[in-house]
Amino acid sequence: MEKDVLAKNALLAERNRGWLEGRQILALNVMSSPGAGKTTLLERTIERLSGDRPISVIEGDQATARDAERVRAAGAHALQINTGTGCHLDAQMIADGLRRLEPAAASLLVIENVGNLVCPALFDLGERFRVVVISVTEGDDKPLKYPHIFRTGDVLVLNKVDLLPHVSFDVRRFLDFANRINPRLRIFQVSATRGDGLDAWCQWLKSSMQTTA
Amino acid sequence: MEKDVLAKNALLAERNRGWLEGRQILALNVMSSPGAGKTTLLERTIERLSGDRPISVIEGDQATARDAERVRAAGAHALQINTGTGCHLDAQMIADGLRRLEPAAASLLVIENVGNLVCPALFDLGERFRVVVISVTEGDDKPLKYPHIFRTGDVLVLNKVDLLPHVSFDVRRFLDFANRINPRLRIFQVSATRGDGLDAWCQWLKSSMQTTA
Repeated sequence: MEKDVLAKNALLAERNRGWLEGRQILALNVMSSPGAGKTTLLERTIERLSGDRPISVIEGDQATARDAERVRAAGAHALQINTGTGCHLDAQMIADGLRRLEPAAASLLVIENVGNLVCPALFDLGERFRVVVISVTEGDDKPLKYPHIFRTGDVLVLNKVDLLPHVSFDVRRFLDFANRINPRLRIFQVSATRGDGLDAWCQWLKSSMQTTA
Repeated sequence: MEKDVLAKNALLAERNRGWLEGRQILALNVMSSPGAGKTTLLERTIERLSGDRPISVIEGDQATARDAERVRAAGAHALQINTGTGCHLDAQMIADGLRRLEPAAASLLVIENVGNLVCPALFDLGERFRVVVISVTEGDDKPLKYPHIFRTGDVLVLNKVDLLPHVSFDVRRFLDFANRINPRLRIFQVSATRGDGLDAWCQWLKSSMQTTA
């Protein structure tokens, strides 16, 4: 059963990928535990980049439209998907979402997945880059304990570095574990609330958008 | 399909519940996001209570035996279950685990679920109490955004209160949201690392063990 679900999802994801490429849209699938700071990172990113390019967001949550409201207030076009008891977004939800959202050509699309470090690892949505966000309060051993999501990621954002003085988190150890699981990861160390590292992150997004257009 | 899986799980869970009651074992199913501090809470609890009663732990993780090693070092009898890509423990895993672990009569059994605030909500393991752990770094809106796990919980542990001065988390707002989702929740505010609130938590565990034996 699970294999059938994943095979069907893979086909739909490729179609989304083609549609997005055809429209020259850079799409990110942003995944993390609940409360790692995905939405705050997104708010700060929208504030910095939406002058350059239109930004659209698909928000996945079990319940509420809070995140869509937050990113709309920051300046993005947003669609909220509520999954109910569902634990991740899938390619069909994104296909339906794209039809409703109608993101502009040559824009940035950010898909904020349901807060879950486990299930989203298995589902391709048709994104160009898979972005894993983890915060320093979650512990430096997470790449070893939840390896699948780190293995499928392209980008790793280590968030809440402003809290490093108050928690037991060894950045070098974390980076070593992450590198052991997936040496391909491009890594950004940021504090979305305080602003550390956002220049490098936004610069990378801009140059990725240029190669997409 | 999902309904069949859950119906089969419900039967197995009742059998576990009966087995545990027959053996006068108090069983907790502890659930949270990755890094909310389940294992640290468990270490501190074991150090305080294992003089009174034997404590056994079933540890669920996608990968590694790190958590079982940690709770063994604290003084518990422990079994590690690795779920691979799986996102939660189920009643069959617990039935198998109980056979291997052979917890003593009139003891405490703690099941530490896979770090995931979504999927474990759907699976009864046969526990007496469902304990949801959330840390103040995760944001005060989590009961609204992930309502299912809060709805099925009996106990809510708000952890990492030592970090309250450094994060934007309104305890009153959080408690109001939690109460709105599930007014039955018994709530403890703790810092597992600094020790705040552990007396009340351990006192509650002790009196719950007395009513089980």
